[in-house]
Amino acid sequence: MNEYSSKLLEGAVEELSRLPGIGKRTALRLALHLLREDAVATHKLSDALKKMRDEIRFCKRCNNISDNEFCDICSNSRRDENTICVVSDTRDVLAVENTSQFNGLYHVLGGIINPMEGIGPNDLNISHLLDRLKSETINEIILALPPTVEGDTTGYYLFKLLGPFDLKITTIARGVAVGNDLEYTDEVTLGRSILNRLPFEQSNKR
Amino acid sequence: MNEYSSKLLEGAVEELSRLPGIGKRTALRLALHLLREDAVATHKLSDALKKMRDEIRFCKRCNNISDNEFCDICSNSRRDENTICVVSDTRDVLAVENTSQFNGLYHVLGGIINPMEGIGPNDLNISHLLDRLKSETINEIILALPPTVEGDTTGYYLFKLLGPFDLKITTIARGVAVGNDLEYTDEVTLGRSILNRLPFEQSNKR
Repeated sequence: MNEYSSKLLEGAVEELSRLPGIGKRTALRLALHLLREDAVATHKLSDALKKMRDEIRFCKRCNNISDNEFCDICSNSRRDENTICVVSDTRDVLAVENTSQFNGLYHVLGGIINPMEGIGPNDLNISHLLDRLKSETINEIILALPPTVEGDTTGYYLFKLLGPFDLKITTIARGVAVGNDLEYTDEVTLGRSILNRLPFEQSNKR
Repeated sequence: MNEYSSKLLEGAVEELSRLPGIGKRTALRLALHLLREDAVATHKLSDALKKMRDEIRFCKRCNNISDNEFCDICSNSRRDENTICVVSDTRDVLAVENTSQFNGLYHVLGGIINPMEGIGPNDLNISHLLDRLKSETINEIILALPPTVEGDTTGYYLFKLLGPFDLKITTIARGVAVGNDLEYTDEVTLGRSILNRLPFEQSNKR
């Protein structure tokens, strides 16, 4: 599909099809849908995206996506400040929150150690985790990392790194199917995997 | 998934998930993708959508999407001005154009007669087609409508309506599988269906 009758349409389709999982055909369908709808709908979408991108911040404490200097979870005085759940991604914060089984704080690494993609420990938000362990009173770190080789590598790296600190290091139970994203795990399974978390030393006895 | 850590993220996810075929989870994935990318990417997308919606026009002749008063096809002096291909939708113009088997003009109805959805002939761009037949010199009308019951109804309605005019009325060959959208038909099949078009009277002998 090379020729659109409109450069404006072509421009919109091109930008939409840069999004992951959106091909040219889907992009065209979305653009034509917007043209059929009232202009207000497109303005709302356009403004919401721009506003999000320009104004969103990352929590200074846990690196989660936030509207303010500190995110709602870190600002909530009813959360248990002595437990940190380490996740790779903001989506995993949402996934764990949805289980209602965790009342502590988070630490978002912003990725996972992946030598194949050239992502090493220094590319992740790890040194700030060490700062937190020094300045906050943390009793337990829960590693809620993806159940993949890269997740295991990252977990093992953190386990070694955090060894010198006086705290319990646990990992979510392997109720989660290996190879799946946390995000796509049902809430009951993910919730149970938090309740049944194991000391890290036992976690590789599958 | 009820709680995002950010109202800004929530707003963007909400607007994205209004698009057809985009659920909350996909919308979240797209929003987080934009947050990971440079802000320029979001601005380009946001601007392209708004610009398209605000500035796009419909060709005064054929009702196709256009950047100007008349679309590129209607403005092209090398097109055969005596043949009109009637389609329901802009996407079908693109589909027919991609076959490179048609060099005439188009007429975009902007839908199809569908009593179940309350869409009657008066909701479509039909009276303007009659105006064109009076003011332009048209020898042939090709009906390239969806191969569905509604498409057949619309075709039959147009065939009856256009009867009094001195012109050939044809319909694209039924090489297109019944029930499929023109848009999703491969170019060879769709191209052949234009080359093998039949006089409308024969078109129902399947």
